[in-house]
Amino acid sequence: MYYRMNIEIINTGTELMLGQVLNTHEYFLCRRLAEKGYIVSRQSAVADTPEAIESALRDAMNRADVVICTGGLGPTSDDLTREVVANLAGQSLIENASVVEHIENWFASRNRSCPPGARTQALVPERAIVLPNSHGTAPGLIIEVPRARGTALNSAWLVMLPGPPRELRPMFDNQVLPWLMQRFKQPAPFVCRTIRTTGIPESAMQALLIGPLSNLVRTGLEVGYCSRPGEVDVRLSARGENAALIVAEAEKIVVGLAGENVYGTGDERLEDVVVRELARHGKTVVTAESCTGGRIANRLTDVPGASAVFLGGAVTYSNELKRIVLGVRAETLEGHGAVSEQTAREMAEGARTRFGADYALATTGIAGPSGGTPAKPVGTVFIALASEQRTIVVRQLNQYDRDTFKQVTSQQALDMLRRQLRGV
Amino acid sequence: MYYRMNIEIINTGTELMLGQVLNTHEYFLCRRLAEKGYIVSRQSAVADTPEAIESALRDAMNRADVVICTGGLGPTSDDLTREVVANLAGQSLIENASVVEHIENWFASRNRSCPPGARTQALVPERAIVLPNSHGTAPGLIIEVPRARGTALNSAWLVMLPGPPRELRPMFDNQVLPWLMQRFKQPAPFVCRTIRTTGIPESAMQALLIGPLSNLVRTGLEVGYCSRPGEVDVRLSARGENAALIVAEAEKIVVGLAGENVYGTGDERLEDVVVRELARHGKTVVTAESCTGGRIANRLTDVPGASAVFLGGAVTYSNELKRIVLGVRAETLEGHGAVSEQTAREMAEGARTRFGADYALATTGIAGPSGGTPAKPVGTVFIALASEQRTIVVRQLNQYDRDTFKQVTSQQALDMLRRQLRGV
Repeated sequence: MYYRMNIEIINTGTELMLGQVLNTHEYFLCRRLAEKGYIVSRQSAVADTPEAIESALRDAMNRADVVICTGGLGPTSDDLTREVVANLAGQSLIENASVVEHIENWFASRNRSCPPGARTQALVPERAIVLPNSHGTAPGLIIEVPRARGTALNSAWLVMLPGPPRELRPMFDNQVLPWLMQRFKQPAPFVCRTIRTTGIPESAMQALLIGPLSNLVRTGLEVGYCSRPGEVDVRLSARGENAALIVAEAEKIVVGLAGENVYGTGDERLEDVVVRELARHGKTVVTAESCTGGRIANRLTDVPGASAVFLGGAVTYSNELKRIVLGVRAETLEGHGAVSEQTAREMAEGARTRFGADYALATTGIAGPSGGTPAKPVGTVFIALASEQRTIVVRQLNQYDRDTFKQVTSQQALDMLRRQLRGV
Repeated sequence: MYYRMNIEIINTGTELMLGQVLNTHEYFLCRRLAEKGYIVSRQSAVADTPEAIESALRDAMNRADVVICTGGLGPTSDDLTREVVANLAGQSLIENASVVEHIENWFASRNRSCPPGARTQALVPERAIVLPNSHGTAPGLIIEVPRARGTALNSAWLVMLPGPPRELRPMFDNQVLPWLMQRFKQPAPFVCRTIRTTGIPESAMQALLIGPLSNLVRTGLEVGYCSRPGEVDVRLSARGENAALIVAEAEKIVVGLAGENVYGTGDERLEDVVVRELARHGKTVVTAESCTGGRIANRLTDVPGASAVFLGGAVTYSNELKRIVLGVRAETLEGHGAVSEQTAREMAEGARTRFGADYALATTGIAGPSGGTPAKPVGTVFIALASEQRTIVVRQLNQYDRDTFKQVTSQQALDMLRRQLRGV
């Protein structure tokens, strides 16, 4: 029988509710599941008290076929969580001999004595599937739990995973995903493609695509937009026999309309694309940053292998450094000001020739919050790209908070270089 | 009447369910609320479909007094939340004139035409409190929604916030928190203090503090630790008449034991403290970065007013640039290698004298993933601090992924300068 499968995730941990840690489990699990075509329908986080966990589990089990719950399996506070789960499943807790052996070996091989309470982790609901933990002591558990009467299915599956990422991740990849794919076979193919763009704001992108994609939407295409400073992702997905065809057709339309504003797909960042394109052309780049303060260099050097194409750069906040490091002329700084087309041009050209690169990117502007004038308000920025043939300078008005200003300006600069390399 | 207040958070976004982005809203909101003594009881994330949002809102409203919902207020097709909410509240959507004006001014002041659909954002439920958005176009909303019959309270409050962090964060701090604190007064004083430290790992910090703080813990002190690359926050909180006394006493103990590893409190970043201390001493700094690739300069220039103390710097990835920009000698690079104490020293001294600053920070190391040798494995880094009197060089082994390597190394460099300025 065909049914749309529901998966929910519950992350337990008081530190999540206090905002002390980022919830990276949600990110990891949702991503891994989406790659296989399973879309999580809801994620919840609660404190790791037995009451909060029981309440979240009960709610989720009444909606979902599979509930993946992280944390609460360690040796300290958590035999209560074990009891909650056993109780929900109507099973007793029994000591699992192979888990006991694993825990004893774990401590023995590290020349540590087995702490009191560690054996609690070997208590498992009697009919649970026990998932060995190769990176820690607490096993994972898969348990079938009867549902409340009156729901469509007789039972839900509860997957309990240990909290530490280094334990959870291999256990999920090597044990849970194979079980899931065997137990809940995909009813139909699922295809998802993310197209990354820069240069078109989210609302304009939507206006551009809504009409042309509408026929495909009627045949099952889903379109989503995700906007970050200086960029917009367009996410295309479909399910069913024609999913691949629908998504490919949609991608063709998006690429056709967004054109060179499309810089990549999937997880690619703009800096990844710029480094890759420079390497492909055998070209090098240097930077000369004033208002971006090193943001461009920092982004480029976030890419492994950047050293093959990025020689380095200068951060010239003071006029003095613009002169001595980049060779910007004093007359230019005095006559046109540090924030001017002429200064941006001389910064880029100076960096390119002095540092010996094929390309140079330069930025000079007013990040704010202070320093604006009526003629050059806060947010004004000149971005220059110098090459052997010519120097292009653009003026932008990026009126954001300081951090977003730096990010958007660095994005525009990197994108100028990307377009240059693509020959557009 | 006293009641334990329930706050829930709902983050909407299909990108969350697909694992395409980290849920930073959960982190931010839970943290801010905890600082004021409001503990979130459950957080949920769902796709941004009207069905998923409505279902999550209905569930949360039956449990919570206040539900804070993020995302879904923008102008595009997946931003359908405002209709769902108006419907739940039994209110019509009406166009808000001041929001229309704000949106039109927003685009006009940026010399952009108002895109079709942008005005959708001015549609608000008729009795909603409208929260102006100073960093974007979509307003926030606070709406009282009648609850299902048979629940303890007659209504729940829905707080709707725009998704982009740069819009959500100031709106939450400046508008939502004051409203919340006025509407839902704390039943007893709550005091929270976060002490920021660098230089002691989390487990060592816990071991250092657990004994000395134990008496205060028995009187109601709560202690939390939050570890990020290169730093650990110690969060001290208490509730009740003696809360301020207990937290002050605990802070004295932490500062006494952690000593100069304490660099700040609250939201202060290490770069804020370094810029402030430089300004206080009337000193300037320049940077000479190889393996950190501009991260130090980028962090310093994230601080408003950095230009008063940060003159600029160089990112010298190639040996060539180390020579021509910083004056590192060819013999040093050949004899000792680019990753060496001698190179770090010459980078810092060259930057300081050439760029004319009081201090210079230099880094040279192997960020990885490749490039290591048995004598200098991936993660090896030399950090130099030059001043008029002397140059200090330290060797560190920061064996992390590339991004964490850069962050931790930049942290160690900035902290060397902080300690120098503090005279320790």
